Amino acid sequence: MGEREEVQNNNDIEIGVERRGPSSLSSSRSASPESRRTTSSSLKEPLLLPHDAKRTKQISHLAIIGANCRYFQAFAAYAGCNMVLAIAAAGLCAYISPAAAGSGIPEVKAYLNGIDAHSILAPSTLFVKIFGSIFGVAAGFVVGKEGPMVHTGACIASLLGQGGSRKYGLTWKWLRYFKNDLDRRDLITCGAAAGVAAAFRAPVGGVLFALEEIASWWRSALLWRTFFTTAVVAVVLRTFIVFCRGGQCGLFGEGGLIMFDVNSVNPTYRIADLLAVIVLGMIGGIFGSLYNYLVDKVLRTYSIINERGPVFKILLAIIISLLTSCCSYGLPWLSKCIPCPASLGDQCPTVGRYGNFKSFQCPPNHYNDLASLFMTTNDDAIRNLFSSGFDKEFQLSTLIVFFAAIYCLGIITYGIAVPSGLFIPVILAGASYGRLIGTLLGSLSDLDVGFFALLGAASFLGGTMRMTVSLCVILLELTNGLLMLPLVMLVLLISKTVADCFNKGVYDQIVEMKGFPFLEAHAEPYMRNLIASDVASGPLVTFSGIEKVANILYALKTTKHNGFPVIDEPPFSDAPQLCGLVLRSHLLVLLKGKKFTKQRMAIGSNMLRTFNAQDFDKAGSGKGVKLEDLDIREEELEMYVDLHPIVNTSPYAVVETMSLAKAAVLFRQLGLRHMLVTPRMPGRPPVVGILTRHDFMSEHVLGLYPQFQTKK
Amino acid sequence: MGEREEVQNNNDIEIGVERRGPSSLSSSRSASPESRRTTSSSLKEPLLLPHDAKRTKQISHLAIIGANCRYFQAFAAYAGCNMVLAIAAAGLCAYISPAAAGSGIPEVKAYLNGIDAHSILAPSTLFVKIFGSIFGVAAGFVVGKEGPMVHTGACIASLLGQGGSRKYGLTWKWLRYFKNDLDRRDLITCGAAAGVAAAFRAPVGGVLFALEEIASWWRSALLWRTFFTTAVVAVVLRTFIVFCRGGQCGLFGEGGLIMFDVNSVNPTYRIADLLAVIVLGMIGGIFGSLYNYLVDKVLRTYSIINERGPVFKILLAIIISLLTSCCSYGLPWLSKCIPCPASLGDQCPTVGRYGNFKSFQCPPNHYNDLASLFMTTNDDAIRNLFSSGFDKEFQLSTLIVFFAAIYCLGIITYGIAVPSGLFIPVILAGASYGRLIGTLLGSLSDLDVGFFALLGAASFLGGTMRMTVSLCVILLELTNGLLMLPLVMLVLLISKTVADCFNKGVYDQIVEMKGFPFLEAHAEPYMRNLIASDVASGPLVTFSGIEKVANILYALKTTKHNGFPVIDEPPFSDAPQLCGLVLRSHLLVLLKGKKFTKQRMAIGSNMLRTFNAQDFDKAGSGKGVKLEDLDIREEELEMYVDLHPIVNTSPYAVVETMSLAKAAVLFRQLGLRHMLVTPRMPGRPPVVGILTRHDFMSEHVLGLYPQFQTKK
Repeated sequence: MGEREEVQNNNDIEIGVERRGPSSLSSSRSASPESRRTTSSSLKEPLLLPHDAKRTKQISHLAIIGANCRYFQAFAAYAGCNMVLAIAAAGLCAYISPAAAGSGIPEVKAYLNGIDAHSILAPSTLFVKIFGSIFGVAAGFVVGKEGPMVHTGACIASLLGQGGSRKYGLTWKWLRYFKNDLDRRDLITCGAAAGVAAAFRAPVGGVLFALEEIASWWRSALLWRTFFTTAVVAVVLRTFIVFCRGGQCGLFGEGGLIMFDVNSVNPTYRIADLLAVIVLGMIGGIFGSLYNYLVDKVLRTYSIINERGPVFKILLAIIISLLTSCCSYGLPWLSKCIPCPASLGDQCPTVGRYGNFKSFQCPPNHYNDLASLFMTTNDDAIRNLFSSGFDKEFQLSTLIVFFAAIYCLGIITYGIAVPSGLFIPVILAGASYGRLIGTLLGSLSDLDVGFFALLGAASFLGGTMRMTVSLCVILLELTNGLLMLPLVMLVLLISKTVADCFNKGVYDQIVEMKGFPFLEAHAEPYMRNLIASDVASGPLVTFSGIEKVANILYALKTTKHNGFPVIDEPPFSDAPQLCGLVLRSHLLVLLKGKKFTKQRMAIGSNMLRTFNAQDFDKAGSGKGVKLEDLDIREEELEMYVDLHPIVNTSPYAVVETMSLAKAAVLFRQLGLRHMLVTPRMPGRPPVVGILTRHDFMSEHVLGLYPQFQTKK
Repeated sequence: MGEREEVQNNNDIEIGVERRGPSSLSSSRSASPESRRTTSSSLKEPLLLPHDAKRTKQISHLAIIGANCRYFQAFAAYAGCNMVLAIAAAGLCAYISPAAAGSGIPEVKAYLNGIDAHSILAPSTLFVKIFGSIFGVAAGFVVGKEGPMVHTGACIASLLGQGGSRKYGLTWKWLRYFKNDLDRRDLITCGAAAGVAAAFRAPVGGVLFALEEIASWWRSALLWRTFFTTAVVAVVLRTFIVFCRGGQCGLFGEGGLIMFDVNSVNPTYRIADLLAVIVLGMIGGIFGSLYNYLVDKVLRTYSIINERGPVFKILLAIIISLLTSCCSYGLPWLSKCIPCPASLGDQCPTVGRYGNFKSFQCPPNHYNDLASLFMTTNDDAIRNLFSSGFDKEFQLSTLIVFFAAIYCLGIITYGIAVPSGLFIPVILAGASYGRLIGTLLGSLSDLDVGFFALLGAASFLGGTMRMTVSLCVILLELTNGLLMLPLVMLVLLISKTVADCFNKGVYDQIVEMKGFPFLEAHAEPYMRNLIASDVASGPLVTFSGIEKVANILYALKTTKHNGFPVIDEPPFSDAPQLCGLVLRSHLLVLLKGKKFTKQRMAIGSNMLRTFNAQDFDKAGSGKGVKLEDLDIREEELEMYVDLHPIVNTSPYAVVETMSLAKAAVLFRQLGLRHMLVTPRMPGRPPVVGILTRHDFMSEHVLGLYPQFQTKK
């Protein structure tokens, strides 16, 4: 082999950018894995570093300079492509739908808790979520696609529930059964469950994830509906996997229905292993809560940058993209080349095709283990870490470097204006941490290093997300490790318990940070020292049963209340008495119908004949009659309208002296939006206040009563 | 071989009564499976029917008569042993604890819905449940041990929650944290989940079963607690299984953590298979709902017999035991002998040891397939039906006979005074039905007959129990068939949907039949046409804030109310106003403390100093201060007692005009026992009624308003 030939070899640097570069994107679309595996003829052997001592120094120096130049070009191509994709993802998020950035799970969780933020499930969010996520993952960011898929599922369900999108000309009339809050939220819960089921190919895990993490209220009917949804997902998914088995759909079929099969692992363990697992769970819990803490800090920092405008959002994404490219291209150089195990034959190293054992800069029959983790898809990196074949496949130093890099990159990546899931970074970091511990313990433990990686991933997931049953089932469905279930359960419990000592779960943290008025399932302890009337704030706006149009319009214009108590007054009753509660949206529909009378008189339900029952349906988010849509003429302002037909005559109410804690439980358990406060003693107006979600928020209550601050 | 020898052979009839006779009980205790497998030397070859044509007719006739006589003796021994065990089980139930009969799941479900029936979770019930279940299963009844194990778990949890049993001298003071309704019910839910987890070796299934079927209220804290419980169960179970691997514990370790492993089954299927599976699910749903219907009819018939006294209960058990013995001993004679497959070698037939391929009356190297199902443990029968090795292992006629026998025996057995689970009969019937369909379809389907058996079991379970996620996970954990999950989900959904068209789930039916005032999660539609005051029944008994002892005693004696409204009257307030609600149990403790005053005056909370905080704890079931325990002297009757310190000043209340449906939702969602009804207009007493669980029962409401009967 002459020098010329070697230099020529250097021209075709194989850096194996399947994972992070656009080449993966294009190749996976243009060619099936099968064909990529076989058509290596067009790709050359990897760069050989000079290792022939006989060659003259001068020529090898030249070669090195040349090589360095090539390496730099390769890096530029790699980082450049990543950056273009990152700009595309961040641009979509920054300019079209800022709500699509991040995981989406906290947003869906908040929505199902009763927070109607229009943008969360808007069609534009759906569009950006899908394409932003594709670009973001392709750009090589340490982000997952699971969170965005949950959000995508919820968005699609929301669109369906609205009967399609009128704006984009997609409407279905037969979907009108979802024109109420309850059914629409059920549908969105099903959509989120379908997202999880599709992301992890875990149908039962999807149901449980929706139950444990996303939904705020749970009914047995909902269980059954989500189960139906995920069963359909499972059947469709399996059909596609079978259809794609021939390699027609790129990487889709990879792993089949079980993405990371560890079923072959030998499930024996001793008491000593149990101790190791407990320690692993404890450290995992600490790392997990630290992860949450750092993500929170980074998010708060980023939000300052992101608030300055779309350009800053994109700039931030560019910086993180560059950093990620530097890490994934630069760090493998630190790793020593490892000779291929003879038993693998052709499989090692993988040059010019899809697979593990990346050659990177190594001589023939050697592979770079760090490149094998960095330069592949996230799924394959996880599969590598879970694999049990070779205990020595990854060096200790490799695992340390990879763990540190992924842990840090995961933290600094979440929060940039790109759809980004948290599952994959956490599983990657946890799996490398677990495999690291397994390798360190070595022969001290009977357990396989691949299984240690699974336990490490479980401990990190438990430490950050704080779920139990759903994570357990998702991990079971991901790995088929039913015999390992007791240990996985144990690790999840330990890491969750340890992490709960420090802070809240990552999704709860993000919900809090984003300022959503999230209603917790339990009442805060200090609420026991307060009564309902202590927190009912603001001047109360009430209507008469038959009210002047001008008064209603004024109240709608000057307040943002969504519900108004209606009080029957003499001469329509003996004394002022509560008639019920009327909703802003229903008032607007009523005013638009213009069934006014000149005299103050009851028309009763006859009036409703002029309305369609569907007029009072819950409108799609951001739709419905708006105040600006009304054109009330001057003379109509002095007319009267009978509110009785649209009044909810059985609103839930509490006495003003009711313990605030009990009122909060009532409000939360029944999923209310408005709760009336009635006087304890007669002789006062029949309603003395109205409680809404905001009145139960800690910030509101503690703002009024700072003396309870320390007790929190 | 001479005639003498043949007749001698006949002396030692091998009927293989491992499953149903006491020999299984004693042998499984005296010898390990290993030793039983090898020590066959003391047992002789099975009976050979005359098949040598050369022998004289006379001698062979004699032999047949002799053989028939032996067979009858064997049957007498078999049926006699079964009957003794059946009498033991029924006797325990009839004389010690009638509440222990049946599955126990409906009772636990009712208890967790808020029905405090003392006997449900009493220590005597626990005792009878454990031993009655052992005797009942050993007596060869077609009953399972799963339901009783759930009940056992709940009983143990209840005992723990009471701080042990004072009656039996087992008390733990540190368990006082469970001295309230909420935590005690949580603990019992955990106990039930542990029972499921232990019965099926399905920890996640246990959590979900508790969630979906048993619990009426669910909080995320409960999810986490049940998960912890079942994780401990899983670890302990696995430790025992490893410990018992050597065969030290009889049949305990059989099947390992996965009882019926079908992981080896090939998971490919086509569209045509999907259709077959859908049809299978539909028929399974019909059979399942028919099962429920017949169980209900049989239960109602039996309850008439059982009410006549313990002797009748035992007689009924004897009749069913005899019938079962006849079926399981007699029916295998209908089956033809099948030659052993050559590939099995020594495994077939099994003579004198534990295993499949029972020889029964067959010549050497033949086996009786029906005997292989009847004459074995229930677990092994299920394992046989799920097995995939030999498609032709069971003849079509065998499967039909077995299915019919088990289906009918299962229906007539449930309801006798023996602890009896429903899972095993349903799984057995479903598996034989599924295998029957699989065998009928033959080569038309790609699916394995063993997997058809699993699908059949799933369809029956879905059709009778109407659960989805929990059954799915339990089946997954039982069979390790993760790749089959989509089909199992589909079958469960279809069978549940079909069966729901006909009647309610079997446990709901039993709850209704037993007359428990079970509070449904949803309000009945006719309730929308009623208001709260329509159903509040009975004269209202109220107390003053400072009440005369005689009045309290009179009210406690003459009513059975558990809660009384307390009203402050002048001179202690300006006008009569609601002070709150006081509980019967707290009143009894207060009266026992005798802090009375001669004058009508407020003592306030100082009074409570003489009481211990724990005095007002929720007492163990059937404990606490009783009315008979009070000895109030004559002069004390005229004294006063201040109720304010023990009044709940924030009781939940509704206005009398509140829609009954909304009041029902409030009552159910918050898990209330008493709900006050307040007047709409001032000028009346501050409380006009009190609503309890019974006021929301359909029987009560429809009794008052029969016009809604048809709308139901």
